[in-house]
Amino acid sequence: MVAELEHLIAGDLVQEAGSAASRGGRRSTLVELHSDLRFAGIDLGVTSIDLEITNGRLEPVAAVREPADIRSGPKTVLGRVDAILAELRSDGAYARLSGIGIGVPGPVSFRDGVPASPPIMPGWDGYPVRELLARKHSCPVVVDNDVNIMAMGERYAGVARSADDVLFVKIGSGVGCGIFIGGELYRGPDGCAGDIGHIQVETDDPVCSCGHIGCLEALFSGIALERDATAAGRSGQSLALAERLAARGTVTARDVAECAAGGDTIATRLIRDGGGRLGSVLAGLVSFINPSMIVIGGGLTGLGHVLLGEIRSAVYRRSLPLATGNLPVVLSELGPRAGVAGAGFLASDLAFAEAAS
Amino acid sequence: MVAELEHLIAGDLVQEAGSAASRGGRRSTLVELHSDLRFAGIDLGVTSIDLEITNGRLEPVAAVREPADIRSGPKTVLGRVDAILAELRSDGAYARLSGIGIGVPGPVSFRDGVPASPPIMPGWDGYPVRELLARKHSCPVVVDNDVNIMAMGERYAGVARSADDVLFVKIGSGVGCGIFIGGELYRGPDGCAGDIGHIQVETDDPVCSCGHIGCLEALFSGIALERDATAAGRSGQSLALAERLAARGTVTARDVAECAAGGDTIATRLIRDGGGRLGSVLAGLVSFINPSMIVIGGGLTGLGHVLLGEIRSAVYRRSLPLATGNLPVVLSELGPRAGVAGAGFLASDLAFAEAAS
Repeated sequence: MVAELEHLIAGDLVQEAGSAASRGGRRSTLVELHSDLRFAGIDLGVTSIDLEITNGRLEPVAAVREPADIRSGPKTVLGRVDAILAELRSDGAYARLSGIGIGVPGPVSFRDGVPASPPIMPGWDGYPVRELLARKHSCPVVVDNDVNIMAMGERYAGVARSADDVLFVKIGSGVGCGIFIGGELYRGPDGCAGDIGHIQVETDDPVCSCGHIGCLEALFSGIALERDATAAGRSGQSLALAERLAARGTVTARDVAECAAGGDTIATRLIRDGGGRLGSVLAGLVSFINPSMIVIGGGLTGLGHVLLGEIRSAVYRRSLPLATGNLPVVLSELGPRAGVAGAGFLASDLAFAEAAS
Repeated sequence: MVAELEHLIAGDLVQEAGSAASRGGRRSTLVELHSDLRFAGIDLGVTSIDLEITNGRLEPVAAVREPADIRSGPKTVLGRVDAILAELRSDGAYARLSGIGIGVPGPVSFRDGVPASPPIMPGWDGYPVRELLARKHSCPVVVDNDVNIMAMGERYAGVARSADDVLFVKIGSGVGCGIFIGGELYRGPDGCAGDIGHIQVETDDPVCSCGHIGCLEALFSGIALERDATAAGRSGQSLALAERLAARGTVTARDVAECAAGGDTIATRLIRDGGGRLGSVLAGLVSFINPSMIVIGGGLTGLGHVLLGEIRSAVYRRSLPLATGNLPVVLSELGPRAGVAGAGFLASDLAFAEAAS
């Protein structure tokens, strides 16, 4: 038996499963993934915690989703994570964890396992997320940004399973991109590759949360769409949006999607304009990196096929034929599960790599 | 002696160089690069042929540069390449070639060794460049686009020697980009990665040679700069450019550089505007791919530090601090030699890989 396998058995990652049928010579021992093997995939959003416990085959055995405010700081949010994990253990979802993957909604120093100057996460900068979780749960932990874990999910369990050079575009509160090159997630030397929300698309307006002017996500993102939809409702430009605004005091991306589906032309135009802007940026990136697939994910994919149509149209119109001849532009397959699925995969990948070495 | 080494000796790539001093046991044989080893690096431009013969250490032993028109077609241009090589052989620059690397000014199917729908190379589409050169010179041949061979030159013998994630931006008649990721040249699944000249930067004007509107290279490139400088001369807006236009009937990028150096404000503004536009596109690519170095090369680097200053200013102003904190934006070190140096390196790389396998 090879040394790596002995390590995996010693680490309770795999277990012996009897002897193989004799083919002459020494009998082989069959091994299988340990039946008690459990990983946790955690996706911290701006306003939510998603957590999934998987078995060794990365099949979910338990899942929890609850609202949370990332701005309440790491102690509060990670305290809730620990409490959820404790409950799941009492419920029998796991006896011990062999690995944890966690994504946060901001830049991460992947090497150090800490958030790195995340703009919308006060108190998280440099906070030792990996170290504290690893100590508390006695297992290897991997920390990445939310976009990368979702991209990882689609690459290993979703629509991008068979593509090696993939752009995964998340449209949520902000806009970001996960990049696979030659089958590997590319994070860049400073770990901030894929930060496409701050590519400039206008030169005069509006000011972005980053302080620059005309960034993509200041023009199209969940936050930008709510701002524009609220304005369209307030001004009475869109009666459908005005009604929803009057009824609830706020309109969301879902309202825009529903109003558009109901035939409201202003709501439809908001989606089309946004899709066109994102598509123009993606067209440039297609010329630059020549991907073999683009996957659109994140909360705003609820805007559906109107959005996808505009993105596709801009990408196909603006890129050169050689780069788009075989380029599918598709929606995420895992939807809201993409993040926890990718985080679970990262956890398993790390656990096996560490145990085998 | 390992099998690979025997193959390299059999292929005349390396030769024995006596016995090593005994350390007990069987005596080792020293080997060195074969002294007769020769590679050819060829850089076909729109209006020129550059060719260099190197020894096994990739040091140039002979170089030829002559004007040529890529539009005269592959038979004429490659006929001249063969004639130059024949002359160099008679002059004793080489007895036989162990590899040829050749770059062409347009898209290439790297796998097939043929130009792929090159817009400014009539007659070259699908022409079997690799096959014909290989048959004629009985050695392995690698065909790539001009930007990639220049990028390769800077990566292996120039300013980017110690950087793994590099954007090499060529500003010549057009604009293109060579991309190194994790130390490897990335060509993309369709081989057209780096085609940044056709990223849209304006929505209304001007029409580009590709048929789209507002492409980067329609606004800033050698061709665009000559067009704008000619207009500034004709209208009398710039007296310095008008004088040169009157004297020679045409103005070049070099004229713009000289007029700017002489204090002409219009010429300076043309350079600044172009550098700013290119810099804005690069800022977006920095946010996207987070490189560790940007190298500016190609004929228009003659515009020098005014251009570099504008590019730097736009990149540093528009990208996020995390991505630009350690990002050098520098001029090519090899200048006009970058292409032949990179082509020679590709030739050597291929020859050793084929011989050793």
